[in-house]
This record gives sequence, C-alpha cells and structure tokens, in this order.
Amino acid sequence: MHILIIGAAGMIGAKLTQRLVADGRLGEATVDRLSLVDVVEPRVPATPIAVTVEGADLSAPGVPARLVASRPDVIFHLAAIVSGEAEADFDKGYRINLDGTRGLFEAIRQEGLKAPYRPRVVFTSSIAVFGAPFPEAIDDDFLSTPLTSYGTQKAIGELLLSDYSRRGFLDGIGIRLPTICIRPGAPNKAASGFFSNILREPLAGKEAVLPVAEDVQHWHASPRAAIGFLVHAATMDLAPLGGRRILSMPGLTATVGEQIAALRRVAGDKAVALIRREPDPVIERIVAGWPRNFAPTRAPALGFRAETSFDEIIRIHIEDELGGRIG
Amino acid sequence: MHILIIGAAGMIGAKLTQRLVADGRLGEATVDRLSLVDVVEPRVPATPIAVTVEGADLSAPGVPARLVASRPDVIFHLAAIVSGEAEADFDKGYRINLDGTRGLFEAIRQEGLKAPYRPRVVFTSSIAVFGAPFPEAIDDDFLSTPLTSYGTQKAIGELLLSDYSRRGFLDGIGIRLPTICIRPGAPNKAASGFFSNILREPLAGKEAVLPVAEDVQHWHASPRAAIGFLVHAATMDLAPLGGRRILSMPGLTATVGEQIAALRRVAGDKAVALIRREPDPVIERIVAGWPRNFAPTRAPALGFRAETSFDEIIRIHIEDELGGRIG
Repeated sequence: MHILIIGAAGMIGAKLTQRLVADGRLGEATVDRLSLVDVVEPRVPATPIAVTVEGADLSAPGVPARLVASRPDVIFHLAAIVSGEAEADFDKGYRINLDGTRGLFEAIRQEGLKAPYRPRVVFTSSIAVFGAPFPEAIDDDFLSTPLTSYGTQKAIGELLLSDYSRRGFLDGIGIRLPTICIRPGAPNKAASGFFSNILREPLAGKEAVLPVAEDVQHWHASPRAAIGFLVHAATMDLAPLGGRRILSMPGLTATVGEQIAALRRVAGDKAVALIRREPDPVIERIVAGWPRNFAPTRAPALGFRAETSFDEIIRIHIEDELGGRIG
Repeated sequence: MHILIIGAAGMIGAKLTQRLVADGRLGEATVDRLSLVDVVEPRVPATPIAVTVEGADLSAPGVPARLVASRPDVIFHLAAIVSGEAEADFDKGYRINLDGTRGLFEAIRQEGLKAPYRPRVVFTSSIAVFGAPFPEAIDDDFLSTPLTSYGTQKAIGELLLSDYSRRGFLDGIGIRLPTICIRPGAPNKAASGFFSNILREPLAGKEAVLPVAEDVQHWHASPRAAIGFLVHAATMDLAPLGGRRILSMPGLTATVGEQIAALRRVAGDKAVALIRREPDPVIERIVAGWPRNFAPTRAPALGFRAETSFDEIIRIHIEDELGGRIG
C-alpha cells in the first residue's frame, strides 16, 4: 500500500508517520511506500519502507497533479494554514486552505479521468467550523457558522470532500478534531496554547501562564487519540456514512479547573503551583466564541474512541512524551 | 442609488427589475441607476431610470472587477447554473456557481482596498443546501449536507458571503429561497417543474403531467413573495443577524394533493381534470431527497413574509400572470 501524507512535518503528521512506520501496516495492508509532503521538507524516518520526502506548496500550479500522479492508495490531507495566520493573512489562508484543498481533490478527479482511480482521502477538519451561539452540547446535526476564515475554509473543504465523494471521484472522510491536548513541544502563541501549556510545562518542572478563568470549558483529545482517529478513518468501511462524510470526533469536555484538578491528582500540588494566573482579556474574548462541549453519536457508534478523563490525557503525555517520568 | 443585478435575465431577475422600475425606489432611496447583467443580455426595461444592460460571464477574467468598478450601492447576485445543469456539467457548475461567486466577492474586496467600499450584497441561496435525512421540519440550526453539486456550490457561497461580511469587505445577506411556485412560462424539464406545471397549465386550459404521488410534500413560495424577500433583504437592518447572515426564507409546506385541492377551490373540477397522472420513478426518486418542510423562526421575526395558503399562491399567479382571468 502506498500512503501519501500532506502536512507530514506538522505535529499530527509526524506522529502519524511514526505510527505507520512502527506498525508497518495500515489495517490489513502492508505499507510498502510512504510519500511525505509538507511546505518544509519532512524528516526521513528510519524504516525499511520506501520513503520519499518533498517540500512543496499544495497551492502551487502542478503540485497536486504531481503528488497524485503516483496514485497513492490512501491520502491523508492534514496540511493547513492555522487559525491565527489564516486570520492575519486573508489571501494566504484562502490560497492554501481552500485552493490547495480544492486543487488536491481536483487533481485526484483528473487522474481518475485518465484511468479509474478512487483513493481513500482522510481530511482533517476542525471544531472551528462551529461558531457561537451554541447549544449546551453540539450534536451531529448542528449547522456550521464559522467565526474565522480558517473555520470557513475548513467548512468549504468539508463540502468539497463530500461532493467529490458523492460523485465517486474519491472516497473521502472528514474528521473534525477536538483541540489536541497535551500538545508536545514549546509553548506557542496560539490563543488555544494555554490549554496544553498549563499541563505540559508543570509536568516538566516549568512555569506556565493561565490567561483565562478556571470556569472556561473546552473540548479535548490527546495526540494519541487523534492518530487513532486518522488510522480508523483510513481503514473503516465508509458505507455506513451514507452521504454524510464529515464526522465530529469524540472528545472530552473539561473546564480549566478540571484540567488543573487532574494535574494535581497525577503530579501533585508542586506541579499545580507552577501555574501563574495572568488574565488576558484578548484571549478570554477569543475563547468565549469557541465550542465548549459536543454530543457526537455517529463517530462513537462507528468505532472512534477518545479519552474519558483528563487524568488519562495527562498519563498519555507522560508515557508518549516524557518516557513515563514526571520532571 | 445604483443597483446591480447579476442574473437579471432570469425569471426572478426580470421580476425584480420590473418591481424596481415600478417603484422607482428601494426602501428610502431613489433608484437612479440600474445595471443589468446576465450571460445573455437582459432586456432594457421602459423607465426614466438610467439603465445599462450587459451580457457577461461572471467567471470570465476581469468581469467581476469591471462590474463593481462603478461601485453599485446594492448588488443582487442571482446568477447560477441551475441544479440539473450543474449536476450534468461538473466543471461548468463549479466555474459559474463557485468561481463566479467568489470572483464577485473578491472583486468587491479589491475595490474596497482602493478606497472604502462596502456594498449591500443580496445572495440567493437555496433549500438545496439541505440533504436527506431530514427532521419533520428543518429549523434554523440544521446542518447543510447538500446532495447535489448545485447545493454544494450554494452552501460554499453562503460560507464565503459570511466570511467576507464578517471581515467587513461587504455587507452580505444570503436568503434560501423555497421552490418558486407558480413559475410562469412554459413547462420545463427541471425535476421540480411539475409543482408549477400542474397548476399553471390547467389555469390556462391546458393539460399537465403529474409524475409523482399526491402525498409528495414540498416547500413553496410565490414569485411575488420571492421579490418581496429580495427587496426586504436589500433594505433591512442587518445588525440583528449577528454573524449568521444566511436565512432560510418562510414558505408554505403542501402536499401535491393539497395543491390540487386548492386548484379545485379556485378553478373548479374542470381545471383539475386536466392533470394527467404519469408516474415517473426517476423524478419520484429525486424528489424523495428534497426538503419537505421548514420551521424558520429568524426570517419571519426579521420581517420576511410568504403566503399562508395555496389558494393565495394560485390567486397571485392569476393576478400577476393572467391579468386576473382564468383561461
């Protein structure tokens, strides 16, 4: 099986690569070729699998056609300009997130016009397709009214994926990821960064800033769960989806206070003492427009699984990122 | 006030032109210039208002920029490749309905980058953004899962309009029209044509074919109501819409049997006898995927009004199209 990962250098892309290399297979099929693409050239993993890496801009003329010319069986489309940048640079966000995505789907269709070709395409969407006001929990039938250009571009990607799938040009599934927590790596300036920072930094013995009140509630899943979603989406039978190929993934709703309580249970008062409260009205206002809670029923019924407690999310971080030890 | 109508040669565009010419004003403002554009050159109406007509393809390079260079105050964007054609010609549907619409919004943004410009843009969307399975009545929070490329393109237009409005590039409102009944003119081959044919033709003393069962239920509004929606959308205060600039319009749900009963009340048994039943499994299957009923609350609360009985819809047709007389 030949797998193409677009966005392979990002956090999720790198972890997915790691998982595929470790498993050597995707579902029942042996992975014998891996094409890794990102705007910066992804690292070559140590593996006997045939790997090609490429730095390429999905929105540049000819790039999507070249990527699909080798007819990968499964395409993970994870690449995106993130929320903050898509908001700051209107043209760039639309060029990469809309034109790049559409260009990929269209290149697959054109490839299929030459000779039958209908790859599985797994598209990562986002809970940013939703915008306030929200019900208590967002169910599978709730409308998309994004309040960012990023969310708009993801919602359009969902619609295109669904139409190209309905037409038989590709076999697509779109999964709306919860906010990934605990994000590994250094603290970043994303407005959502603090959800991870307040756990990751104290677990490493470092100070973290909490810019919002403890009653702020949000929707989370671990990086390990996200990789599980991707692998399941790539291997599951899509027939039960019918015409609705976009799924809100399961996750865990928690207030910041509940996150901190879990940190206390797992790592003690010393860790919690490293959280410094520094209210930031800008971040508080942004976060107020974000979804707090979901009630997905389709995805769990189709076998997608997420964590059920924040203690579990913290333990996964300790296992996967800290070698089992708290700093 | 300068008004641009894109799609001015279509049934709705022509009626809107007629209404604006008759009123000489839009809301409080005097109409002093009217630009009428369609892929075929619209007719020049008899009016003292300054009118320009133009045949132009919205998706051709430079066309949107030229249309907005004269900075119309209000733009009605009614142009679209219809459902059947967008399904039959994938490329053409995306080119006109997606690229044309996006090109228009982007031309407005570019015009605004030269000097402040933020026109009111009224975009006609469609109940085709919804796809089965449906609840008993579709409320204002129900998701868009179109089952046609046309519906997909309209849903994408809604998202773009909302994002361009949120960004302040234009002042947009999207209105989802019910199926227009009674459509004037000759019977056409659109799958939805029979809803109008079975009333319009008997009212003119002619035979009509009914291809579905009498229990088929659908969502309707008259052409007169549709023009009322457009004028209201162009003149109302949009602040109460908040970030949600797309509205499902009010309408009337009725079964084919109820349509026929109304025809009997208004025009007698003789008219009803002109309906010939010729079941068509293809049309029956298409219609089964269409919305049957809505429960919009936002649009009525904001002053949009539709008919409340099919007798009224039939009487409007007799007044507006038949000079008050049944043939």
